[in-house]
Amino acid sequence: MIGYPNAKKVPLKDSTVSTANRGMTLERDLNDTNEFYLATDRAVIHKKPTPIQVVHVDYPDRTAAKITEAYYRTPSTTDYNGVYKGRAIDFEAKEIKSKTSFPFQCIHEHQIEHLKRVIRHGAIAFVIVRFTSRNETFLVPADRLISAYDKRERASVSYTWFTENGKRIPEGYSPRLDYLRCVDELIKEETK
Amino acid sequence: MIGYPNAKKVPLKDSTVSTANRGMTLERDLNDTNEFYLATDRAVIHKKPTPIQVVHVDYPDRTAAKITEAYYRTPSTTDYNGVYKGRAIDFEAKEIKSKTSFPFQCIHEHQIEHLKRVIRHGAIAFVIVRFTSRNETFLVPADRLISAYDKRERASVSYTWFTENGKRIPEGYSPRLDYLRCVDELIKEETK
Repeated sequence: MIGYPNAKKVPLKDSTVSTANRGMTLERDLNDTNEFYLATDRAVIHKKPTPIQVVHVDYPDRTAAKITEAYYRTPSTTDYNGVYKGRAIDFEAKEIKSKTSFPFQCIHEHQIEHLKRVIRHGAIAFVIVRFTSRNETFLVPADRLISAYDKRERASVSYTWFTENGKRIPEGYSPRLDYLRCVDELIKEETK
Repeated sequence: MIGYPNAKKVPLKDSTVSTANRGMTLERDLNDTNEFYLATDRAVIHKKPTPIQVVHVDYPDRTAAKITEAYYRTPSTTDYNGVYKGRAIDFEAKEIKSKTSFPFQCIHEHQIEHLKRVIRHGAIAFVIVRFTSRNETFLVPADRLISAYDKRERASVSYTWFTENGKRIPEGYSPRLDYLRCVDELIKEETK
């Protein structure tokens, strides 16, 4: 059994790095939405924690563990997964500033590999992309984005491509980003 | 987009704490098995990273990030999930020393809640329990363990209960712990 040392409540404080431009708003909206889905018992979808390699731990007192040396590791999977209507759900979320295009360098090779795998095994896989300058967020089936990625005719896919191949996610108050509505459409389209 | 600072290759070194009795062997066997399932394209199942709250990060050089203050957080989900045969898979793994019983205090309330939720949404949910002193590992459907947990007639379930309610997982060389064979039986039993 893995014992988790007592979780200490700490203020979210990271004095050396501003997270303002780090894609936190889409993450925050997805987090709120997933909590809403959980609270309304509609789905069980979570963001995977960032993998961190712990090298040194101090014990200032016997019950509290303080990690004093650790390093970020590159995840081998996508960031979000869970279950909805009996289906495995798996997706990645990206936020970009450009008004016109989504560069392929935003997607890591391992994320593409992972999405290909879960598709093979029957998950509903997609990518959520937010064009921050337009304040528009799209859900696009992973296989479509992967096709474009594999062909790599250009270094990016255009905003127009998203309007043609993806679905615009309704944004509101509760939930913030109702992406499951788009997933419902994907499920309907599967059965046709 | 979330930028992951370059992952630094570090030796697995934790000088203050021995992980020998921390339930690492079951975790290691499951990790090897999941890698085997991935390599043979049989399933896509991963252990979720331990959630860690990062408080301070140093940048000894511009590309390398060194976390110098962080704390373990209690996970709100189970440790393992993924997809197999079009089904969402979700499970927790526990290792215990006792020969005769599995105390309920090994299971955290949030893990029970999470398992209940994913069951409601159609995932195949179970708990893998290794009796280390007997070198026997069982897979038990989560709903059965939850029933016993909810009734709480005793503070534990016995080893005998596992032999009656769970399935013994075949252990070998490759994969180490072929738990998907038990999952196949669960799937068959569902359709009856």
